[in-house]
Amino acid sequence: MKTIGVFLLGLCIGGSAAQAAQPPLRVNGQRLVGHLEALSEFGKNPQGGVSRVAYTDADRDGRQYVMGLMRDAGLEVSIDTAGNIVGKRAGTDAHLKPIIIGSHIDSVPEGGNYDGDVGSLGAIEVAQILNEHRVRVRHPLQVIIFENEEGALLGSAALALGVDEKRLNSVSQSGKVVRDGIKFLGGDPDRLAEAKRQPGSMTAYVELHIEQGAVLEQQRIQIGVVEGIVGIMDAEVTVDGFANHAGTTPMNQRHDALLSAARFVEKLNQVVTSTPGRQVGTVGWIKAQPGAYNVVPGKVTLGMELRDLDAQKIKDLYEQIRLAADDIGRMNGTRFQFSPFAATTPALTDNYLKTLIGQSAKGLRLSTLVLPSGAGHDAQDMAHLGPIGMIFIPSVGGISHAPKEFSRPADIENGANVLLQTVLGLDRAPDTK
Amino acid sequence: MKTIGVFLLGLCIGGSAAQAAQPPLRVNGQRLVGHLEALSEFGKNPQGGVSRVAYTDADRDGRQYVMGLMRDAGLEVSIDTAGNIVGKRAGTDAHLKPIIIGSHIDSVPEGGNYDGDVGSLGAIEVAQILNEHRVRVRHPLQVIIFENEEGALLGSAALALGVDEKRLNSVSQSGKVVRDGIKFLGGDPDRLAEAKRQPGSMTAYVELHIEQGAVLEQQRIQIGVVEGIVGIMDAEVTVDGFANHAGTTPMNQRHDALLSAARFVEKLNQVVTSTPGRQVGTVGWIKAQPGAYNVVPGKVTLGMELRDLDAQKIKDLYEQIRLAADDIGRMNGTRFQFSPFAATTPALTDNYLKTLIGQSAKGLRLSTLVLPSGAGHDAQDMAHLGPIGMIFIPSVGGISHAPKEFSRPADIENGANVLLQTVLGLDRAPDTK
Repeated sequence: MKTIGVFLLGLCIGGSAAQAAQPPLRVNGQRLVGHLEALSEFGKNPQGGVSRVAYTDADRDGRQYVMGLMRDAGLEVSIDTAGNIVGKRAGTDAHLKPIIIGSHIDSVPEGGNYDGDVGSLGAIEVAQILNEHRVRVRHPLQVIIFENEEGALLGSAALALGVDEKRLNSVSQSGKVVRDGIKFLGGDPDRLAEAKRQPGSMTAYVELHIEQGAVLEQQRIQIGVVEGIVGIMDAEVTVDGFANHAGTTPMNQRHDALLSAARFVEKLNQVVTSTPGRQVGTVGWIKAQPGAYNVVPGKVTLGMELRDLDAQKIKDLYEQIRLAADDIGRMNGTRFQFSPFAATTPALTDNYLKTLIGQSAKGLRLSTLVLPSGAGHDAQDMAHLGPIGMIFIPSVGGISHAPKEFSRPADIENGANVLLQTVLGLDRAPDTK
Repeated sequence: MKTIGVFLLGLCIGGSAAQAAQPPLRVNGQRLVGHLEALSEFGKNPQGGVSRVAYTDADRDGRQYVMGLMRDAGLEVSIDTAGNIVGKRAGTDAHLKPIIIGSHIDSVPEGGNYDGDVGSLGAIEVAQILNEHRVRVRHPLQVIIFENEEGALLGSAALALGVDEKRLNSVSQSGKVVRDGIKFLGGDPDRLAEAKRQPGSMTAYVELHIEQGAVLEQQRIQIGVVEGIVGIMDAEVTVDGFANHAGTTPMNQRHDALLSAARFVEKLNQVVTSTPGRQVGTVGWIKAQPGAYNVVPGKVTLGMELRDLDAQKIKDLYEQIRLAADDIGRMNGTRFQFSPFAATTPALTDNYLKTLIGQSAKGLRLSTLVLPSGAGHDAQDMAHLGPIGMIFIPSVGGISHAPKEFSRPADIENGANVLLQTVLGLDRAPDTK
């Protein structure tokens, strides 16, 4: 994929020479935070946080609210056949490809009010400010609110990659079949292919998001410049042993599947942590059968996950873990089987956009750190269409996907301002078309 | 508790000197196996085995069938207030305390046709043979079919120990509250105390049972002489860590409850197997929360169990395991909590009865092995009333609590014959009253 090219010399962040006499363009932080508060009402949980799962009434109602904000910001709003909300603002040069900004407003069950929402409302705020100040930009601008991001990036997958029938007919977290969910949101699953865009059809995609980790907060950094979105390899692991009476089966005659699984969990941790780098590996769920005090477990299933920016490294770690599992199985006559699925490839961000985001932050006197995104984002799908960039703001305590997810108003405003300056910088870059 | 005393000198197994001219007394093996087959129809599963869970229709109907067999065997049948079936046969000396034999006919869900059934129908066959041959014995004989053995020995607990209101009001595996279940079987939960017997009120209790393990089969032994029923210590263990995003949380900042739990499972195994002896320790179930591929588990609950014939050893092992858990918790900032419950104390069998069972088997030219019972049995409750003995027969493959549970007809017949000879031997022992 073609990068935009580095042409920063003499770039003046915050306004061109002609605008120098005017106060620099800034987002309205108070309004943005007010919109976040208003959005938090849709799917609000009594115990805090939000359950705005894609395809639920709360999701549909929240989207209605957001579409209102987009219209207020002067955007021409439509819903594509995949159910994504697309808000368009014309540029002065009709030959240029759009700059796309956006995120998502669906949440996990019992999630928080910042994951996706900050980037979505931040993008709308950028459009609003440009509209209010009648700022004319060369590129068309699009704000996209992707549908069902928490459902393995469904909306952006439909837009950038295509979604097959199997996925369309699967049951989503809402309980609705994806196909019905898309229809529920105003999309048209029978014409899904019309939502798919072509590689090279955009100038760039830039997404503002909360970090969902604690790195920025711990290092007291205001803006994260994302170097890439990690690839993810998920596998379901089955350990077959033999179920037997826990009272009458001597220790040396057991084929205890849970004992093997326990050794596996520790070994995976050891393999992942004994290799230099920032890769992570997790066993997130486990089930032992039959699952009673008085029965030696005969079968265990568990879910493992590996993440890194380097696809080859993920592969190497996985192989090491598989070999170690075979050894563990031999120790007590149990057998490991691996069913890998849901692999995503790492998506690196564009070098020019990284520089531009960094420069935008510095122009706003904000500290920056280059870091990977350990979480998946719509941006990784959008990378199939053109250059992507991502701006992170701190998550307090690194907490995410939970009611206690929180980012400070000042950080939210900073993030939106960096997004605004990045869009303006991108628009001024001479060789983007 | 007083043991019966050793007085084996000159004891002639299989008949007194006066009976020497007659063929020795033997059970009718074919009839016994036929009764087992007929009983297997009550609660029969289409895929094999039986679900005759206590307090279900299948249980009640199976009990009706068994009560018919008891009446056919000349027993005077009644149901005590706890719902146990009691069949009585008078002895020639009204001053002697009864010899009690029996077992249970309720099963686990999707259980087999031998656990409990062999001992119950074996005991009835012994009564039947005595009746058919008009054998007069000095002691009163009682055949007891205990109710809800699989519900932590409920029937025998009511008879030997008493059952409190809490247990009476708990929900049983059938879905019925225990109190209602007892009523359903013909008991009277409001007069439960009347079922309770006094310590010293019996001569002995002898139970025939399948081994439920593979020791006898592997060593090609026909009869197991049980030296005791192990004590059981169950504990629910909670590991508290901190749930976090599996992509954005660096490995060295995790408080992974499942990693700690895995180390615990392995450590428990190591503690139990590194101490000489036949103790067993198991982690039979485990649950990680929230339980998703992409979340570091914040909480794990699991069930551990320790069993041994020596109560002090169980205590020592438990203490070792608790200390080790504290160390594991410190490694990654997680915390272990233990909630012990459902502890049963080991119940040793009577020395005289062990000798008598062994002699009875040898008189029948059957090989014997002294072994512990790793499973719990009604006999352990009956040990509170007087001397107990248990006779094991081989379980093919050691399989139990499963449809494939199986004991060979020849072994079943052998077991019932040993039970018969043990009863006769006990009856002849001069100092039992």
